[in-house]
Amino acid sequence: DRITQGCNGSDISFIVLGASGDLAKKKIYPVLWKLWNNGFMGANSNIIGYARSKLTDAELQDRLRPFLPKTTQPERMEEFLKKCIYFQGAYDKAESFAGLDTFISEQDAKKGLKCSNRVFYLALPPNVFGSVCALVRSEAWSKTGYSRVIIEKPFGHDSESSAILSEQLSKVLKENEMYRIDHYLGKEMVQNMLVVRFANTIFTPSWNRDNISSVQISFKEPFGTQGRGGYFDQSGIIRDILQNHLLQVLTIVAMEKPVSTRADDIRDEKVKVLKCIEALSLDDVVLGQYVANPIEGDEDSKMGYKDDPQVPDDSITPTFCTAVMHIRNERWDGVPFIMRAGKALNERKAEIRIQFKDVPGDIFGFGNTLRNELVVRIQPDEAVYLKINNKNPGMELEAAQTYLDLSYNFMYKDAKMPEAYERLILNVINGDQMHFVRSDELVEAWRIFTPLLHSIENKDAGVKVIPYKYGSRGPEASNKLITELGYVYTPDNAEWAKAKANM
Amino acid sequence: DRITQGCNGSDISFIVLGASGDLAKKKIYPVLWKLWNNGFMGANSNIIGYARSKLTDAELQDRLRPFLPKTTQPERMEEFLKKCIYFQGAYDKAESFAGLDTFISEQDAKKGLKCSNRVFYLALPPNVFGSVCALVRSEAWSKTGYSRVIIEKPFGHDSESSAILSEQLSKVLKENEMYRIDHYLGKEMVQNMLVVRFANTIFTPSWNRDNISSVQISFKEPFGTQGRGGYFDQSGIIRDILQNHLLQVLTIVAMEKPVSTRADDIRDEKVKVLKCIEALSLDDVVLGQYVANPIEGDEDSKMGYKDDPQVPDDSITPTFCTAVMHIRNERWDGVPFIMRAGKALNERKAEIRIQFKDVPGDIFGFGNTLRNELVVRIQPDEAVYLKINNKNPGMELEAAQTYLDLSYNFMYKDAKMPEAYERLILNVINGDQMHFVRSDELVEAWRIFTPLLHSIENKDAGVKVIPYKYGSRGPEASNKLITELGYVYTPDNAEWAKAKANM
Amino acid sequence: DRITQGCNGSDISFIVLGASGDLAKKKIYPVLWKLWNNGFMGANSNIIGYARSKLTDAELQDRLRPFLPKTTQPERMEEFLKKCIYFQGAYDKAESFAGLDTFISEQDAKKGLKCSNRVFYLALPPNVFGSVCALVRSEAWSKTGYSRVIIEKPFGHDSESSAILSEQLSKVLKENEMYRIDHYLGKEMVQNMLVVRFANTIFTPSWNRDNISSVQISFKEPFGTQGRGGYFDQSGIIRDILQNHLLQVLTIVAMEKPVSTRADDIRDEKVKVLKCIEALSLDDVVLGQYVANPIEGDEDSKMGYKDDPQVPDDSITPTFCTAVMHIRNERWDGVPFIMRAGKALNERKAEIRIQFKDVPGDIFGFGNTLRNELVVRIQPDEAVYLKINNKNPGMELEAAQTYLDLSYNFMYKDAKMPEAYERLILNVINGDQMHFVRSDELVEAWRIFTPLLHSIENKDAGVKVIPYKYGSRGPEASNKLITELGYVYTPDNAEWAKAKANM
Amino acid sequence: DRITQGCNGSDISFIVLGASGDLAKKKIYPVLWKLWNNGFMGANSNIIGYARSKLTDAELQDRLRPFLPKTTQPERMEEFLKKCIYFQGAYDKAESFAGLDTFISEQDAKKGLKCSNRVFYLALPPNVFGSVCALVRSEAWSKTGYSRVIIEKPFGHDSESSAILSEQLSKVLKENEMYRIDHYLGKEMVQNMLVVRFANTIFTPSWNRDNISSVQISFKEPFGTQGRGGYFDQSGIIRDILQNHLLQVLTIVAMEKPVSTRADDIRDEKVKVLKCIEALSLDDVVLGQYVANPIEGDEDSKMGYKDDPQVPDDSITPTFCTAVMHIRNERWDGVPFIMRAGKALNERKAEIRIQFKDVPGDIFGFGNTLRNELVVRIQPDEAVYLKINNKNPGMELEAAQTYLDLSYNFMYKDAKMPEAYERLILNVINGDQMHFVRSDELVEAWRIFTPLLHSIENKDAGVKVIPYKYGSRGPEASNKLITELGYVYTPDNAEWAKAKANM
Repeated sequence: DRITQGCNGSDISFIVLGASGDLAKKKIYPVLWKLWNNGFMGANSNIIGYARSKLTDAELQDRLRPFLPKTTQPERMEEFLKKCIYFQGAYDKAESFAGLDTFISEQDAKKGLKCSNRVFYLALPPNVFGSVCALVRSEAWSKTGYSRVIIEKPFGHDSESSAILSEQLSKVLKENEMYRIDHYLGKEMVQNMLVVRFANTIFTPSWNRDNISSVQISFKEPFGTQGRGGYFDQSGIIRDILQNHLLQVLTIVAMEKPVSTRADDIRDEKVKVLKCIEALSLDDVVLGQYVANPIEGDEDSKMGYKDDPQVPDDSITPTFCTAVMHIRNERWDGVPFIMRAGKALNERKAEIRIQFKDVPGDIFGFGNTLRNELVVRIQPDEAVYLKINNKNPGMELEAAQTYLDLSYNFMYKDAKMPEAYERLILNVINGDQMHFVRSDELVEAWRIFTPLLHSIENKDAGVKVIPYKYGSRGPEASNKLITELGYVYTPDNAEWAKAKANM
Repeated sequence: DRITQGCNGSDISFIVLGASGDLAKKKIYPVLWKLWNNGFMGANSNIIGYARSKLTDAELQDRLRPFLPKTTQPERMEEFLKKCIYFQGAYDKAESFAGLDTFISEQDAKKGLKCSNRVFYLALPPNVFGSVCALVRSEAWSKTGYSRVIIEKPFGHDSESSAILSEQLSKVLKENEMYRIDHYLGKEMVQNMLVVRFANTIFTPSWNRDNISSVQISFKEPFGTQGRGGYFDQSGIIRDILQNHLLQVLTIVAMEKPVSTRADDIRDEKVKVLKCIEALSLDDVVLGQYVANPIEGDEDSKMGYKDDPQVPDDSITPTFCTAVMHIRNERWDGVPFIMRAGKALNERKAEIRIQFKDVPGDIFGFGNTLRNELVVRIQPDEAVYLKINNKNPGMELEAAQTYLDLSYNFMYKDAKMPEAYERLILNVINGDQMHFVRSDELVEAWRIFTPLLHSIENKDAGVKVIPYKYGSRGPEASNKLITELGYVYTPDNAEWAKAKANM
Repeated sequence: DRITQGCNGSDISFIVLGASGDLAKKKIYPVLWKLWNNGFMGANSNIIGYARSKLTDAELQDRLRPFLPKTTQPERMEEFLKKCIYFQGAYDKAESFAGLDTFISEQDAKKGLKCSNRVFYLALPPNVFGSVCALVRSEAWSKTGYSRVIIEKPFGHDSESSAILSEQLSKVLKENEMYRIDHYLGKEMVQNMLVVRFANTIFTPSWNRDNISSVQISFKEPFGTQGRGGYFDQSGIIRDILQNHLLQVLTIVAMEKPVSTRADDIRDEKVKVLKCIEALSLDDVVLGQYVANPIEGDEDSKMGYKDDPQVPDDSITPTFCTAVMHIRNERWDGVPFIMRAGKALNERKAEIRIQFKDVPGDIFGFGNTLRNELVVRIQPDEAVYLKINNKNPGMELEAAQTYLDLSYNFMYKDAKMPEAYERLILNVINGDQMHFVRSDELVEAWRIFTPLLHSIENKDAGVKVIPYKYGSRGPEASNKLITELGYVYTPDNAEWAKAKANM
Repeated sequence: DRITQGCNGSDISFIVLGASGDLAKKKIYPVLWKLWNNGFMGANSNIIGYARSKLTDAELQDRLRPFLPKTTQPERMEEFLKKCIYFQGAYDKAESFAGLDTFISEQDAKKGLKCSNRVFYLALPPNVFGSVCALVRSEAWSKTGYSRVIIEKPFGHDSESSAILSEQLSKVLKENEMYRIDHYLGKEMVQNMLVVRFANTIFTPSWNRDNISSVQISFKEPFGTQGRGGYFDQSGIIRDILQNHLLQVLTIVAMEKPVSTRADDIRDEKVKVLKCIEALSLDDVVLGQYVANPIEGDEDSKMGYKDDPQVPDDSITPTFCTAVMHIRNERWDGVPFIMRAGKALNERKAEIRIQFKDVPGDIFGFGNTLRNELVVRIQPDEAVYLKINNKNPGMELEAAQTYLDLSYNFMYKDAKMPEAYERLILNVINGDQMHFVRSDELVEAWRIFTPLLHSIENKDAGVKVIPYKYGSRGPEASNKLITELGYVYTPDNAEWAKAKANM
């Protein structure tokens, strides 16, 4: 990475490759707007759209405008849009990228920039990642500043395909020029996990197999494919959620303390804990697929997964998966890590539950002392709370469950909470790779999931994918498995939850 | 203890010895009203006032009425008052107590009670405890039910005087017939400490010298002697607050886990931890005495301690004391336990602060990571909160202090919180001695404090009692000592505290 | 306890009640000889035999002489024997004991002793303990020194009978005047357990359920009843070995750290841990009874237990028992404590085995890393050794089991190792009750074993007592149970054991 | 690394570059003899000496013969010597190395080997490492098997020079082709440390700042420079012993548990712990230089360091250094790691001492309970022993220090203990890099020591190098420092040590 002295690293050319696509207008440009509007991009920055379509700058800007958030400062937004210029080019021609290089240089020259810092965002299908990166490197790489490339999943669909992609990339990019996005790593509460774990003495002696009974990481979505299940059917819930998002969360919950908060020190630890996880097999999972369960006023609920016109009638793609992972190291040997993700479930929620063991030698009697649980809710309504036992106020010395609570809506009422992409793109501009997936992490992540995925995809194997109703909690077998693993479910106090929401 | 089968243990005769005094009308009868009103006393109970004065039942009742709380049920209160009958007798004559015995028996007979359960409350000066107990035992002890005796501090003023009193009592009463009240043991949050500690796995591995830096137990009162310092000058803040109330709190924070929640199992552990505490000397304390500091609208503040007409001009009685205690056992060796109590300070507060050690090998950098602290506020506004470090919401990965909070006014808004005396007297009725001070506890408590007290009272010793201003935080030397012991003070976030108060 | 100032506490009258019996001549007098010979008895001491038989001093001495050990100092032994004088008396007559009192006083007077310190050793059947103690107290108690009474098991045969005996004793003796002997408490390695546990930081953090898998306490005897099984058949192996000796060892392994090494601080902890042990039932034990298994040159082996002429043909008295105990406290919840005792087994051995858990997240591979085990051998050949894994010397990095060893025959070659009785009687003289069983310990010990004993003795219950061969390792079901409890057996390296023996 | 299938990896060409030098004949060839004689080299292996001198094979063999160990199998040794052939070449000429390549190929062809595996040992001065490696790579690299290069310290003399060397090497060799020898990593007890730490549950919970007071790693040599101090004066004791050997030992004592025993998993952990160590400054060390102290019969002792004719008269090169290192991580924060090395001291010894903290809340009284210490003696007489407190056998309950001991001369009497070089060269043949220093380790090692070294070498700084007497224990200031760091010295029991030596 090259940051020339005397240059402002935040004056950049941000090149959106695939600027005419959906991802670009729906996700990337709105985030760029926020970053620019909040002053995180230098005043001399350009945002260059690149695609095969023939478009004028104004046409691009018109396409983008509807997707930007409402604002009370329309002039400022127009100012932003003016920065969103366009360059037409092919994805497989060196001369196109050479042209892009010239174009960027001209822009830089106009602004009198000594260094040309470039961030390339590949809003493109993964099958062109390798070739596009090669051309970016050979033709459009900055000679006077840094160049960084952002790519998004899928990073392959199994160990082999991922290895091929990684090899293609590594031939032309160094590790510190590659920014693989897993947007879960940009979430406030996922990043907070690092602080909760490593900045609190209180958790230090208890964060281990002696005290923790199980860890659960859940992702629940209350809607199905909504008629557009074609892409999903190629991947399934495991590739979509578990192998990347939830596994990333797991590594942060489980990893050893890093030497520092430097990107590679943290990623070293993530790789280390991944190495200790055994590859999954069918025995470690419960798979489900939702079926229709018509609910008044909910169109989506009338359609089971296979009712989606884009989904084949004989699809056994799981839309729900509970998977148990075992980390064979000193800290975690014997503690099940349970991942659970599903579509068309009863609620929207992503959270981490660290359940502690029963109090040994309990003196308060059966039924009163419930297990401690540290809950970190990622979405919605960020919160950290610790379920504890407390004396029930009143005459008797009775233990009853209550909460030590940190609700963001109460505590950080006025804090500005950036969204994941905003954070991550700013990290790219700052050259901070902490929250991006390194190649060796990817290798391990696929090592863990590939055998399972192959087993599922082997149609002869007769894999059991359990139907569950739209809007339900998923297959009962999942709860059964979780219970067998020692998890003791105690619902949160409903009145409390309500009062909390209204704080 | 004798509980005859087939009897209702809550049908009792509650005998208030010293019924014409201040303590009786201000404290005891109001509590009895509550207990009776809440159904904790059997319907056939009698409340018998006993004193030397000549009084009719009606006269007694008239005296009591003004001190009972306002009620919306005046008839019910009159019903209660009717139970408050009177018996005149001397404190040193056997025939008086024999008369009392007959009187109680007659009352029981009227109600057709088979067993006569008797609770004697000695609202009397301690110098008559021994002789009165002897007469109660010999003349008025129940032959058909249980008899229990409640006494209040002072239980002596040093090891020797306490031993004499204990010996007098033990000659006539068995340990399980004696209920020594320390009303701090009746407080909700003091009792809760048992549950917090022993019903939560999360605290189990961290409650020790490896993880805890210091423990602080504070009592602050925002007013002085208010012109009635005569009694206080005989005892001083150490005897008044530290040697009993704060030491009781300390034992509960520090003791090992008991075998069960049975009274003697808990008291065994309290004695055990007391035995490990070294006796205090002048080197372990900072003593203070407040001086006038006139504050607008506060009459009391114009009068320093020695300005109180009841206090001798050369009094060196401390009105403030910080004392450091060392517990030489496996769990606590090296952890200072700091007690702090004072009159005429800046606020009213009693709380426990367990401060944890710095995070070892901190990766978040100096100044960001503050120490974890578990705070249990006894009064006012009961609360348990844990100061933790959390990611500051926003773009940066920065640790900042926040709170995992349990505020009673939010969580237990509608819970009925009995006051300490109510709880304790109910315990006596139920025969539960858990929250009462056993003789061997008393021996140890005095062993710890007597050498210090004698040093202070040795006028030749030239003990340094530091003047501090009315309404201040006490002598600066106290903060200095606490800092030297490794305590790191970080004020609670004021906005949070305010928001919390308004929840 | 009364120790008059200016007196030598070791100038005593040691009264052997039951002086004409077997226990006296075989056990007590030989121990007294050692104590006297080693200077632990004051020069002015007397040893007074008391029994119903008519005997002269010389006759007593002639009876004792053959049982004393060989000595190279025959004159010194004769000097000792001269101190062994005799007083004839009945066990149920006040005048006999009054006579004894006079006799002792005369002896004291002869020697000009100001104080008369008296130790009464009851070498008598337990059914006279109560009445003899009453007479000793009323007639022969010292008025000028201390008096102490030593009694030996059996202390009852179940909870009820033990309670009756304790009540009889407590009526006439204070706890600090009673010395109940369990000779296992006098053994070097049992006492050493206190030091090993509480004087070594290395064991402090690992002595708990997080690290220890199981604890095993074994007693093995290589011979049977040898034709004199009458007494044994009344008690059985559980009363003979488990309920007292092995349970005492267990409490020392399992108890919390005492406040100090004072007798009552230690006994408080022993009682505390006993209280946490659940009473045993038939489900917790494997019972066995040996049958003949003729071995060349071993007469005893030809006789099964029921072949003993003193044993009834239908006896179901166990001669072998494995029992699993559960201690429900913070330290031990979930860790099985296994006691195992048997007669007619393959070897003579008493030892404690603390087996640690598997290394979590083992990196050395299956089969190489064996479990750590701390072994304390009580008899024969005292030793402490820790089985550890070490690199096998040579080219490969392979773990293999080896030993950190402390063999007394090597390390303390020249140390004089007193026998249990010698130690204990000296403790009595010194007034140190640490190694004697307190009444409340006894209550708990019987509480734990009584239900099991009653179940076994209920002939209708059809209790299964498994036959095992003389000279074997006991019933196979015992090993099965121990394995099911998670114990992993790895034999000690035979070559090492041999080399060690020859060190 | 290329290991062609169907080839025997132990059939190698071992090329000794610098074959005519001292290191080769004194160290390398004798080790190769052992390896070959013990069957660790394939039968078809060749040992090719390479140097500038003109030598015949026979001349080389004649030079080597006197340095080989005595053997009872002279024919076998001659067989070995016949394999030691010679090739003359320059170190800076491509054609020489091309010739070597041809020569090796011819030898392989003679033996019909399909693959040519080559190990190059650079017994050369470090200033030619870079150029020689470049030529080896370009001219003599195997095309049909693996090629590996062994180099020996010094790897630079500070961060900068080391970085230059590493860069030179990394240009031509991949990390997995480079074998940097630190022969301490080949020592039995250093390797054993891995097993002791990670294969024993007993040490798992105590190996940390809560339980360990300090760690000491010592190296003592009983002789001085013996008149050949020229080379030593260029490096000094820090570069000679601390920065490499002792630091390697330290990393193994201090590192976190690796994911596996694979070379890079272990080296990752070593780097990780090194990263947590702060760079040393003069404040962290005591430096010494020995002076003459004539001892009867010891010529060497008559000569102080500066009396060595090869040493400049004003040399301030330390021959002794005690250095305190601080590891700022969760496990070790606050625990001093003390390295100590010196020449001309009172004995020959290299050992590791892990001293545990005092027993908290000690109940055995001052002076009896000494600290636990785990001692691992690297040389001479390998041993592991744990200093523990045990009951002193006898009447009293007194703690006294004793040992749980594992003496190799007793336990592994008949085991063949390879020397460090033998082990390491075999590792090279096997392609196992576990015990070799990786480039990033080297970077960290120099980062830690370079500031200190530069301070010492800055003659203006007036660094204090304390004179100490030949044959002494080094400067008293060293003991003072160690004591201030909390180390409590208790000498080993001399009688025990003697008895042990004679076991």
